[in-house]
Amino acid sequence: MIIENIIGITAGILTSISMLPQLLKVIKEKTVEDLSLPMIIILITGLSLWVWYGIIKNELPIIFSNAFAVIVNLFLLSYYLRFKDK
Amino acid sequence: MIIENIIGITAGILTSISMLPQLLKVIKEKTVEDLSLPMIIILITGLSLWVWYGIIKNELPIIFSNAFAVIVNLFLLSYYLRFKDK
Repeated sequence: MIIENIIGITAGILTSISMLPQLLKVIKEKTVEDLSLPMIIILITGLSLWVWYGIIKNELPIIFSNAFAVIVNLFLLSYYLRFKDK
Repeated sequence: MIIENIIGITAGILTSISMLPQLLKVIKEKTVEDLSLPMIIILITGLSLWVWYGIIKNELPIIFSNAFAVIVNLFLLSYYLRFKDK
């Protein structure tokens, strides 16, 4: 019980923060040519469904990590749309 | 019970396939300049822990979707390392 929570929370933190370096790179360099727009859109949709799944299953690591990842990827999407045409 | 399985499996499929467009884009264009290496490494580590979490919790949608995502991101990592210095 304790081990599974530690694994779940650690996994959640890592997958949540994994997109942060990508987001910071885009903000810093203002180029998104090598990024895939379908990836971002499918990812946001999938992550949102994971949040829903976590709510139904009442599993906090799943809810928080995916909700955070949704927010990061919404920022990534907004920067993508802003820098894409430049 | 049925609804949560549908949501979990759909969420799993979407987050699993989300990195495929990115992988195909990298293979096609052979450039990875705008991709973040820390993102890929942290993501693979986090996804692997999710597989472990899914095994402990015995939740198949979590196991399969994250295992698939680990494989896709290992390919992405190998292409990143191959194209980065070019």
